Amino acid sequence: MQKGRLEAFSDGVIAIIITIMVLEIKRPHGDTLAALKPVLPVLLGYALSFVYVGIYWNNHHHLLAGVTKIDGRVLWANLHLLFWLSLIPFATDWMGENHFAPATLAVYGAVLFMAAMTFNILQRKLIALNGPDSVLARAVAHEWKGRLSPLFYALGVAACFWNAWVAGAIYVALALGWLVPNRRIERPLPPASAAE
Amino acid sequence: MQKGRLEAFSDGVIAIIITIMVLEIKRPHGDTLAALKPVLPVLLGYALSFVYVGIYWNNHHHLLAGVTKIDGRVLWANLHLLFWLSLIPFATDWMGENHFAPATLAVYGAVLFMAAMTFNILQRKLIALNGPDSVLARAVAHEWKGRLSPLFYALGVAACFWNAWVAGAIYVALALGWLVPNRRIERPLPPASAAE
Amino acid sequence: MQKGRLEAFSDGVIAIIITIMVLEIKRPHGDTLAALKPVLPVLLGYALSFVYVGIYWNNHHHLLAGVTKIDGRVLWANLHLLFWLSLIPFATDWMGENHFAPATLAVYGAVLFMAAMTFNILQRKLIALNGPDSVLARAVAHEWKGRLSPLFYALGVAACFWNAWVAGAIYVALALGWLVPNRRIERPLPPASAAE
Amino acid sequence: MQKGRLEAFSDGVIAIIITIMVLEIKRPHGDTLAALKPVLPVLLGYALSFVYVGIYWNNHHHLLAGVTKIDGRVLWANLHLLFWLSLIPFATDWMGENHFAPATLAVYGAVLFMAAMTFNILQRKLIALNGPDSVLARAVAHEWKGRLSPLFYALGVAACFWNAWVAGAIYVALALGWLVPNRRIERPLPPASAAE
Repeated sequence: MQKGRLEAFSDGVIAIIITIMVLEIKRPHGDTLAALKPVLPVLLGYALSFVYVGIYWNNHHHLLAGVTKIDGRVLWANLHLLFWLSLIPFATDWMGENHFAPATLAVYGAVLFMAAMTFNILQRKLIALNGPDSVLARAVAHEWKGRLSPLFYALGVAACFWNAWVAGAIYVALALGWLVPNRRIERPLPPASAAE
Repeated sequence: MQKGRLEAFSDGVIAIIITIMVLEIKRPHGDTLAALKPVLPVLLGYALSFVYVGIYWNNHHHLLAGVTKIDGRVLWANLHLLFWLSLIPFATDWMGENHFAPATLAVYGAVLFMAAMTFNILQRKLIALNGPDSVLARAVAHEWKGRLSPLFYALGVAACFWNAWVAGAIYVALALGWLVPNRRIERPLPPASAAE
Repeated sequence: MQKGRLEAFSDGVIAIIITIMVLEIKRPHGDTLAALKPVLPVLLGYALSFVYVGIYWNNHHHLLAGVTKIDGRVLWANLHLLFWLSLIPFATDWMGENHFAPATLAVYGAVLFMAAMTFNILQRKLIALNGPDSVLARAVAHEWKGRLSPLFYALGVAACFWNAWVAGAIYVALALGWLVPNRRIERPLPPASAAE
Repeated sequence: MQKGRLEAFSDGVIAIIITIMVLEIKRPHGDTLAALKPVLPVLLGYALSFVYVGIYWNNHHHLLAGVTKIDGRVLWANLHLLFWLSLIPFATDWMGENHFAPATLAVYGAVLFMAAMTFNILQRKLIALNGPDSVLARAVAHEWKGRLSPLFYALGVAACFWNAWVAGAIYVALALGWLVPNRRIERPLPPASAAE
């Protein structure tokens, strides 16, 4: 199996996901700056999802950089992750167009929850295949962000029906938490020339 | 001819096909969880097609990994396959929006039938060019899934006008049957470093 | 300048062009096979454009395989070609939805004419840069298809306002003429391993 | 970190941005050449944005060709640039559909301003990481276009509310100014084989 083609395909799908969201931003009615106002929540949701998909691309990048072998199981675990990522544009659009109504925020959080879960599954399959001495296995040995993320998304979903602002704050805080790169994975990587 | 560029182009087209389907899921009318209900058949169809396109990507990957030479005929056989795959979003959308009405299920099955047929044609052209001793030729010598698939799709299409549930069950069963990787192709492949 | 990145970018754009056309096929009104009937001209136009974009991808592939050097002029000549190719989905959609009305056929032909012209410009810039001894220069020395194509598209455009069937026949005949690979370019190419 | 995968991902996103704009050109109402007339401003805006996105792809290409190292900061600076580029289709569509009304021209210019600013940030982060002796650092040492561009976009935005033609002229002039490749970056680059 060719790791390079899996990376290229995943990059393609993620690049399309991150970009097509903009197609769902409806043209403002009118030609004044005031006409942009109803579009603002949609743009806000777009920006948040752009960051999230960017984080997934970044983490996916690190995940595969830390392993050498892939197999059919990894391939399907990867497609499973891509499936949930591909629902982000749909959830983002629904949420933005409805000004972050509780049910739309909950569905958005549920999609992020599933993406986090399937990312963990992919990571487990890669470690099982590449062994406990792989760069990836050592890098994530003491890693807690990835493991705790699903819990926080679940909290966010639960909070939606209690207080939408709390849910929104949880989603934004998680995105910010992930923007900080995982130094443990970044450090032990072989130099670029060797990893390519 | 460059195999790498054919793979990259096919990956690009397949990545776009698998992702743009989500653009056709219409935003729910309303901001409650109940508003999601009419979208469920569309999401279900999307999930099924996502699996099918994923299977084609996976099989295409194996197909080209088992050969070394390509020519103009292969290139056009490949584009012929991509053409039918590109109609999957259209067929999926029509089927989901009409709650799996018989005619829509039949068209969906017909597109899958044509994709299976053109995949077989591409495989034959690759074997004709690379010879009976190529990795691909030896791998598919006793392979029956690929050869029988068109027959099952044809059965599914015929079943649509008799009992839509049977047709749907055939499509889902075929998808599940393909999720199991073809061990015969996977085993005799040279190691990843040599195949790249 | 990196030829590889120019090829990858062009492949990306062409893959997107060939695939997004399907997004413009409107969902049939109704859930019967009869409801597909008004969609047929759109599908026909889609199939023709799919073949045309496939031909351009194929020819672009050969064009760059025959050279080693690129520069800023080549890059912009390439973007100029991609610009006209990117208008094919727009022209295809308008033509199909209006059942090949003369003006829509003329605009479709005009876009193909501009694509053929910009392809010739790109070829000239590549030969000017890579010299008369490059594989490309020798391959196209006696090539007439590329040079005569714009003339035939112009004839097709002119024919639109006289007899739409003649125009359509010219476009289809040109597509078929290009499906036959240019043996002169294919033959003198170095083996795949050297060309990559 | 792998420079190649960052380039591939960016190329993917830019290829999608440059191509999906065409999806937003609405089908003309009617099947005559006259029906194309209301589409002309949209096509004009599309052509301008196509050139701008092409310029960014070109410059991005040179930027990364001039460095060897990337890190997490570069990755996020790159995504920041891609975010603003991804808003170009939205701004283009709104501007074209409203015949270049002042507010729409101002928003278009503001998006270009942010893209120019984030390009500068990315360049600074790359130079900080790769040192003052990197090919990039030496190439842009006396470069003024990149540094002055944001100023001109800001002027263009300000001009929108005074005279839309002046603003449009500034945007077109800037695009033309960038079409001329930066010879300083192009010249000191290592040969293609070494840079790849």
